[in-house]
Amino acid sequence: MTYTISTTVTGTYDATVAATREALAEQGFGILTEIDLKATLKKKLDVDVAPQVILGACRPQLAHQALDIDPSIAAVLPCNVVVRSVDEVTTVVEAFDPDAMTGLAGDAFCDVAADARQRLNAALNALGGDR
Amino acid sequence: MTYTISTTVTGTYDATVAATREALAEQGFGILTEIDLKATLKKKLDVDVAPQVILGACRPQLAHQALDIDPSIAAVLPCNVVVRSVDEVTTVVEAFDPDAMTGLAGDAFCDVAADARQRLNAALNALGGDR
Repeated sequence: MTYTISTTVTGTYDATVAATREALAEQGFGILTEIDLKATLKKKLDVDVAPQVILGACRPQLAHQALDIDPSIAAVLPCNVVVRSVDEVTTVVEAFDPDAMTGLAGDAFCDVAADARQRLNAALNALGGDR
Repeated sequence: MTYTISTTVTGTYDATVAATREALAEQGFGILTEIDLKATLKKKLDVDVAPQVILGACRPQLAHQALDIDPSIAAVLPCNVVVRSVDEVTTVVEAFDPDAMTGLAGDAFCDVAADARQRLNAALNALGGDR
């Protein structure tokens, strides 16, 4: 079972973070939260991990539809999109697969998950990477 | 299939948000992100939903262990804890169930999920609500 959709981009981490923000915005996703995982784990545990950021992407219309179906779905919102450096010229962009939300929360979410998935796939495709 | 664990507390929304922060801190979870869902949906869509906040809770040691097992797990971090007003004296606190993470990502996460689940359950129990 997979729970993410992803693309591997030829590009630096910083450029890919910027391109991912743009691609998500073009698909109607705002970024509500941002976690710099590398900085957080360095600060809290003094360990080193690859540069990576978790972007909390939300299309308000979809979030509202999902909450109308079941308020509990807030526990899996927003939709995380992770940008992670592999090496200096390779960066992975990996999003939580909305289909997995349906797997967790039931078929009532099929339509809203399909809409979210289509938009996230379009955003990943726009990055021009290897999928 | 359930994907959340929750408790229903007799208490105002504001008091329960404060108590939830304390209970999570006592179990070693920091709050990395915060989304005021009511304010966000009002601003973006001009719709009214119940007062509710999504707290992104993270215990760095557990996050680090999980990332060591599989970097893709970042797509389901941090662990969301939602505080949602039901009425003036009733508030629900609902967390993403780490067991559902194991369901999504595989048995390799059993130990780390069990640790996270035990801590989240302890935090919910500390709120003294109806479970």
